[in-house]
Amino acid sequence: KVNGDRLWDSLMEMAKIGPGIAGGNNRQTLTDEDAEGRALFQTWCEAAGMTMGVDTMGNMFATRAGEDPDALPVYMGSHLDTQPTGGKYDGVLGVLGGLEVVRSMNDLGIKTKHPIVVTNWTNEEGTRYAPAMLASGVFTGRHTQDWAYGRADAEGKTFGDELKRIGWVGDEEVGARKMHAMFELHIEQGPILEAEGKDIGVVTHGQGLRWIECTVTGKESHTGSTPMPMRKNAGRGLARITELVHEIAMKHQPNAVGAIGHVDVYPNSRNIIPGKVVFTIDFRSHLQEVIDAMLAEFAEKAPKLCEEIEVGLDWEIVGQFDPPAFDEGCVSAVRNAAERLGYSHMDIVSGAGHDACWINDVAPTAMIMCPCVDGLSHNEAEEISKEWASAGTDVMLHAVLETAEV
Amino acid sequence: KVNGDRLWDSLMEMAKIGPGIAGGNNRQTLTDEDAEGRALFQTWCEAAGMTMGVDTMGNMFATRAGEDPDALPVYMGSHLDTQPTGGKYDGVLGVLGGLEVVRSMNDLGIKTKHPIVVTNWTNEEGTRYAPAMLASGVFTGRHTQDWAYGRADAEGKTFGDELKRIGWVGDEEVGARKMHAMFELHIEQGPILEAEGKDIGVVTHGQGLRWIECTVTGKESHTGSTPMPMRKNAGRGLARITELVHEIAMKHQPNAVGAIGHVDVYPNSRNIIPGKVVFTIDFRSHLQEVIDAMLAEFAEKAPKLCEEIEVGLDWEIVGQFDPPAFDEGCVSAVRNAAERLGYSHMDIVSGAGHDACWINDVAPTAMIMCPCVDGLSHNEAEEISKEWASAGTDVMLHAVLETAEV
Ligand SMILES: NC(=O)NCCC(=O)O
Ligand SMILES: NC(=O)NCCC(=O)O
Repeated sequence: KVNGDRLWDSLMEMAKIGPGIAGGNNRQTLTDEDAEGRALFQTWCEAAGMTMGVDTMGNMFATRAGEDPDALPVYMGSHLDTQPTGGKYDGVLGVLGGLEVVRSMNDLGIKTKHPIVVTNWTNEEGTRYAPAMLASGVFTGRHTQDWAYGRADAEGKTFGDELKRIGWVGDEEVGARKMHAMFELHIEQGPILEAEGKDIGVVTHGQGLRWIECTVTGKESHTGSTPMPMRKNAGRGLARITELVHEIAMKHQPNAVGAIGHVDVYPNSRNIIPGKVVFTIDFRSHLQEVIDAMLAEFAEKAPKLCEEIEVGLDWEIVGQFDPPAFDEGCVSAVRNAAERLGYSHMDIVSGAGHDACWINDVAPTAMIMCPCVDGLSHNEAEEISKEWASAGTDVMLHAVLETAEV
Repeated sequence: KVNGDRLWDSLMEMAKIGPGIAGGNNRQTLTDEDAEGRALFQTWCEAAGMTMGVDTMGNMFATRAGEDPDALPVYMGSHLDTQPTGGKYDGVLGVLGGLEVVRSMNDLGIKTKHPIVVTNWTNEEGTRYAPAMLASGVFTGRHTQDWAYGRADAEGKTFGDELKRIGWVGDEEVGARKMHAMFELHIEQGPILEAEGKDIGVVTHGQGLRWIECTVTGKESHTGSTPMPMRKNAGRGLARITELVHEIAMKHQPNAVGAIGHVDVYPNSRNIIPGKVVFTIDFRSHLQEVIDAMLAEFAEKAPKLCEEIEVGLDWEIVGQFDPPAFDEGCVSAVRNAAERLGYSHMDIVSGAGHDACWINDVAPTAMIMCPCVDGLSHNEAEEISKEWASAGTDVMLHAVLETAEV
């Protein structure tokens, strides 16, 4: 078993970098705080005898040598970046859990045939730069690096410029690495494991996703002196589509979710009728046909709802992936490990997107989930117990040992 | 008659300060651009032989001496601040129209018994610092200066600090001045005069207003992994109240208007269900009973709409005034002037709030309106013709001459 106290101490140490305003973290990708977190992780990896490689997307790869020089490495990893009002565990647990697995193997003098690599994927959250899982997406060929470099944040700063500014453009060609397998440990970010009283979620599938960026166009005019019949209120387009998205998702629940998280109203003045509203819809399901049905219903109804109130609607998909099914061998390794260690477990679908969903395209991949309190995530109040963190990491250790061949 | 070309040149000169991005202006109150606009206005006033006084709210008063040292002055004025995406005429026409009246009186060698004062009221727009007409509100005793100084903009900078920073805290006690009468020339900001083919609106009443700031509280959580039944989506509170406000106003139209212009979503991330949304409703009517009815319907229905979806609602009134009825004598002076000059005119209600609505509490007051193209205002594309501007200013000249006793 791993050293749960040491893991917890490292989690708490990392959480000191980029503190939030309510007990969580604001360590958004490619900020100074991100750079500080990366440097701390590198220090820890080197102290554990690993060597660090960095690719041109800033992805970090810390390697523990294996006994067979020709064997492909087994990867563990997740992300150190957080939401603007994020928790201390989302992503971080998977990276520092990987580090703890290596530290424990060092303590126990365990050698493996395959090298072991612990990875920190850049910009998983997708808040500062859409879409989420941007750098693992480039790694697996879903996006080109040029496109990723050109992504701009709300202030117009590009991914490429900011990666350079914080000093984390590496020299490895992105995606050049080949993997024997990859495991990602992550908090569930939902309420199921806690409600079912299970220590471990064996993740068999992920949800697919569509992010739809909508621009509703009305006409900026005075709230006081514009007669009601002359108004083209873009805010009403947002209102109608907010409720439409909810209705569409409700039709398919529990196999679907949908909401609007990001909204910009222009010019956003108390006495100006909104002339433009830009917002992003997030639709998800682990069933491809449900994703298709939701998108089709949106595409049919949303333009009509806008037409009725004389506002324009443009929309484009700014993030998308289909529901991934994880590798049966890797999933079994996780299930067997939980079983062997005597942890209660259940098969589960991941509600969130994860780097593992994309690495799954290029290598046998699986995920391990641990519960989180009240299913709360993307909230500074996100919480887990030390026991949950250790149990998940124990399972990762055993799954990795099986896969990397002791 | 006034010199319409000179008036137009001054309007275009002022519009060079704080240019917008689409042909209009962004010269928001207490910015560096506001300071620059104020300095230009002062230079022009002094060149026209007037002396400038400034009060502790930054209100500017340029005086042309009268023949009777004991007679109270006749005021003309409006505001030089603009919306973030504002037009070149909203407010500015009333200030520079006042200046043009004095310049024309100088040209014609006209003397008056009462002194004449041209005023620039601070922060009429209310975008940077709610409520609108803040400084004329302090002048007339609707707010205390301390309260106004403490108003904060979106970045937390207070009115008091910013007024000091731009160097426009004057030494006159605010509200100490007494007025014989006050006239405000303003563009209509609505479509009625243009549609009716009238040169002049004789403003008999204004609309009353209620600005209601709402805070809807849900629970920040992950858009992907939070099951639909567990969601508390504050964005849906905004959606439902947006439509409620529209329905309420539609019930009372053409005697009412209502919309939401300003919205802030927290934390505003694509994959976080909004935990909080703050927005401001703007309800108006020229009938007191309609304002009361709209507020009552909102107070009854909005909390229920939020309760149904398990989000909280707090609301408070952050701006309010009852419908003003302008002074019959001043209104007649305006109507007589239009008649005498042969301009087509009609009685009209002001859709927007104006400094004149509040000065009306402490002095006989009236407003003169001129048409604007398509009724468009609070939009950079706001437009008027040189002829409309001159006609309105001619009427103000004659109304002022009658009132100030030549
Ligand atoms: N795990 C996680 O929150 N990832 C961000 C991408 C997503 O929205 O699912
Ligand atoms: N005239 C004008 O736009 N004033 C701002 C106050 C209001 O919203 O009516």
